[in-house]
Amino acid sequence: MRPLRCLAVLLVLVLLPAAAWTLAPPRFPGPQPRARQGTNGVGAYEYETRYFRQRLDHFSFPGVGDEDEPAAFFQQRYLVGRGGGWAGPGGPIFFYCGNEGDITWFAANSGLVWEAAPRFAALVVFAEHRYYGESMPFGSKAKAYNNSKSLAYLTAEQAIADFAVLLTDLKRNLSAEGSPVVLFGGSYGGMLAAWMRLKYPHVAVGALASSAPILQFEDIVPSTIFYDLVSDDFKRESLSCFHTIKDSWKVLDEQGNGQDGLMKLSKTFHLCQTLKTSGDLSDWLSSAYSYLAMVDYPIPSEFLMPLPANPIKEVCRNIDSQPEGTSILERIYAGVNVYYNYTGTVGCFDLNDDPHGMGGWDWQACTEMVMPMSYSENRSMYPPYKFDYASYADSCIKSYGVRPRPRWITTEFGGHNITTVLEKFGSNIIFFNGLLDPWSGGGVLKNISESVIAIVAPLGTVLSPVYLQCLYAIHLYFLVLVTHNRINQCLFSPYLMQSDTAS
Amino acid sequence: MRPLRCLAVLLVLVLLPAAAWTLAPPRFPGPQPRARQGTNGVGAYEYETRYFRQRLDHFSFPGVGDEDEPAAFFQQRYLVGRGGGWAGPGGPIFFYCGNEGDITWFAANSGLVWEAAPRFAALVVFAEHRYYGESMPFGSKAKAYNNSKSLAYLTAEQAIADFAVLLTDLKRNLSAEGSPVVLFGGSYGGMLAAWMRLKYPHVAVGALASSAPILQFEDIVPSTIFYDLVSDDFKRESLSCFHTIKDSWKVLDEQGNGQDGLMKLSKTFHLCQTLKTSGDLSDWLSSAYSYLAMVDYPIPSEFLMPLPANPIKEVCRNIDSQPEGTSILERIYAGVNVYYNYTGTVGCFDLNDDPHGMGGWDWQACTEMVMPMSYSENRSMYPPYKFDYASYADSCIKSYGVRPRPRWITTEFGGHNITTVLEKFGSNIIFFNGLLDPWSGGGVLKNISESVIAIVAPLGTVLSPVYLQCLYAIHLYFLVLVTHNRINQCLFSPYLMQSDTAS
Repeated sequence: MRPLRCLAVLLVLVLLPAAAWTLAPPRFPGPQPRARQGTNGVGAYEYETRYFRQRLDHFSFPGVGDEDEPAAFFQQRYLVGRGGGWAGPGGPIFFYCGNEGDITWFAANSGLVWEAAPRFAALVVFAEHRYYGESMPFGSKAKAYNNSKSLAYLTAEQAIADFAVLLTDLKRNLSAEGSPVVLFGGSYGGMLAAWMRLKYPHVAVGALASSAPILQFEDIVPSTIFYDLVSDDFKRESLSCFHTIKDSWKVLDEQGNGQDGLMKLSKTFHLCQTLKTSGDLSDWLSSAYSYLAMVDYPIPSEFLMPLPANPIKEVCRNIDSQPEGTSILERIYAGVNVYYNYTGTVGCFDLNDDPHGMGGWDWQACTEMVMPMSYSENRSMYPPYKFDYASYADSCIKSYGVRPRPRWITTEFGGHNITTVLEKFGSNIIFFNGLLDPWSGGGVLKNISESVIAIVAPLGTVLSPVYLQCLYAIHLYFLVLVTHNRINQCLFSPYLMQSDTAS
Repeated sequence: MRPLRCLAVLLVLVLLPAAAWTLAPPRFPGPQPRARQGTNGVGAYEYETRYFRQRLDHFSFPGVGDEDEPAAFFQQRYLVGRGGGWAGPGGPIFFYCGNEGDITWFAANSGLVWEAAPRFAALVVFAEHRYYGESMPFGSKAKAYNNSKSLAYLTAEQAIADFAVLLTDLKRNLSAEGSPVVLFGGSYGGMLAAWMRLKYPHVAVGALASSAPILQFEDIVPSTIFYDLVSDDFKRESLSCFHTIKDSWKVLDEQGNGQDGLMKLSKTFHLCQTLKTSGDLSDWLSSAYSYLAMVDYPIPSEFLMPLPANPIKEVCRNIDSQPEGTSILERIYAGVNVYYNYTGTVGCFDLNDDPHGMGGWDWQACTEMVMPMSYSENRSMYPPYKFDYASYADSCIKSYGVRPRPRWITTEFGGHNITTVLEKFGSNIIFFNGLLDPWSGGGVLKNISESVIAIVAPLGTVLSPVYLQCLYAIHLYFLVLVTHNRINQCLFSPYLMQSDTAS
């Protein structure tokens, strides 16, 4: 059982005094959603676990005294495929850019990488992102997450530099300096893959960035797009379901006034502990809706939670099909039960659960990953809300003692006029997006050049298995081209046609 | 009078126990060598001096408590041309990436930028590099240079991020987000310009990198190349001069044994203070030879020092033309007098002078700018020496309490296989090199793609005025193309031909 208590960014800002963790934009789930045999790397996904002595701060120079302190370095975990099919020095390396979570979780759910590797005689490497999983600076998660001083080095730039240093060292040790490296990543990991290809073209020859919302910053895309797309997914399944959810927030807010109301709400939703504010519950519900939209696959999956095929359809069926006289909140409970308790084994719900160790994202959202999020008045199923940077910043200062830098990501990585900039600059990046995935709203949906291309799956989420199968052959074809550096325009015509039609 | 006591990197490692400042590779002089009317920006080079509140560390997040401390920010100086000819929002911006020295010095000596600007209705901006000139973190030079902790943020990555943040802010304030920015830089500033175009293509559309030895790292070019080229410049003028210099080191070393010898040497070379080691003198001489090679222009100049036209010819004339019986060291003294005392006004020489405030380079050389430098046995006029990283690192630890990262620059910015990497990636960079300039040994001398091109002036140094005039029209033509983003291969054919012939 798990709560993923991160979502209700705006909801809470509307309904509640801002609480510590309420400011983050929706957390990302990982990429290719395929349930796998657990996290030990068994079966086709066998790997060896290794550790690399990584520098805490790549961009400044501590003195030798400081450097000798353990704090200047940390052990970064990475997984190396055991497939044995690597062509050896000169053969390709498929490198997964770890996201905001335990790397074994992403390794267990990234089928494409594992399945494509043998066909290319590629070595598979999954690198964990600093401050997640076992890759903790300062020796432990408690110490790494202790305060803003210890968290200071949890940034995308440092993480990408980690990958570059690790890859450079790995290639040298394997005498594989000539090996072409293809980067993979989904969601935040996809952003890292795309950015890394742009910043370190000498380290990797190409990147497949799945569901990577690199445009979800400042005003590049409308701030309402994410929750509009979540809402669209529900409306598509059932208009009455959409309206029930839209109406529920006010009811929930009213009932959450006073201790009695909170007790009652806690009972209705089978919470293990009594609610402190109704905002915590709104957050928990909103998280479920967002995650459902991200993993609304047409087949059963277990990536985030054990879920049936077409889970939003199931949620709405539960909401809509309750006997007449069922209260609106009981309907909502019946709906989210599909997400939080599909196996039916959960007795009560704990709102603070974080099974994949993704908590660091809230810090990242309060520093550089400032993705403005609003609720639109009509299209969304949420109460209208306009993103307010000042409140956002205040809450970050209160929660983490840190002031966000809302313009830093576009200064460092670009984003404005991305088509113009990358048309003449950059190469070998595939942006893949499924349009059911709400993160597609911040994704690159149009081809930029002959080798910076967009593949759009109109009914896909992240890389949904069905679309994955359809596009698999094409991906592989592209990867062959990338790894052999033989790219020309005519080879891309199938993509160009497909994505021009789709987007 | 000035000593530039930085050069004798290897010499000192050979002849002396390593001293604090002896490890740095040759410091860079600035770029376009044109004597100007002082440092106040008078005449055609008029500018306004401004300051920008710059972040000390772009790549980590200090807590708010820390952020409120003045240490988290510093005032970066930048100069904005007053020409008044700017086309306004949308019009081009010519941005000079400040080197390791006072920015007014570079502004006063970078004619190309000032003279090209009006033709393009471009705004001229010269930005000072952190830790140089007035752009001192921690409030003062003394505090900024206090120890390794305060110097920690003196890195190229931070400096380039400074430029990106400053430019982004400047463009926003001028409502000039659409203005194309062309980067300029010479020597280290040229490296920054090229690297910035690669790392921040969304901030600047092109770069002119003059005499930028971006390949002078690890084993990309032979470690002997710099001093071989210096030696070639002397040999070209006079073989006997070359041999006198080559023979002088041993004599100097022998005479420098013991206090009497040091006294005598100090007298011979008219030093203000008695030498502590003969290595200090070797260093001072070697600096002169290297700087002479860098500024061996065919017309008088005042960039580094007031110098006659063809100064190496003058030095050698002085060395060769002394009456018979003149000792070898007296000949050497007569030679370097051309460099250190051409005006004849210097009474005695102070080896520790640093008039352009370039001292921070020694720290940079001890952290990321590890350029291996050796003396070859036959081609060079120096005693044979093979670069030894272990001694280099030891000396950096002793001098600054910091351990260099010899592989970091190529990990961060590339350099190995640069042709292959940039052939498909990157655009709009001109690498200009004059082959008399010893830094050309680490420069990009061949065209990489249709818009990453090399211009080589076979007898040029840095951007020597004569070659500058010859190439001026072509430069301007290129810049027009860059600023208007209209680039195609046929337009570059003159470059391609020229540089193919030259290199």
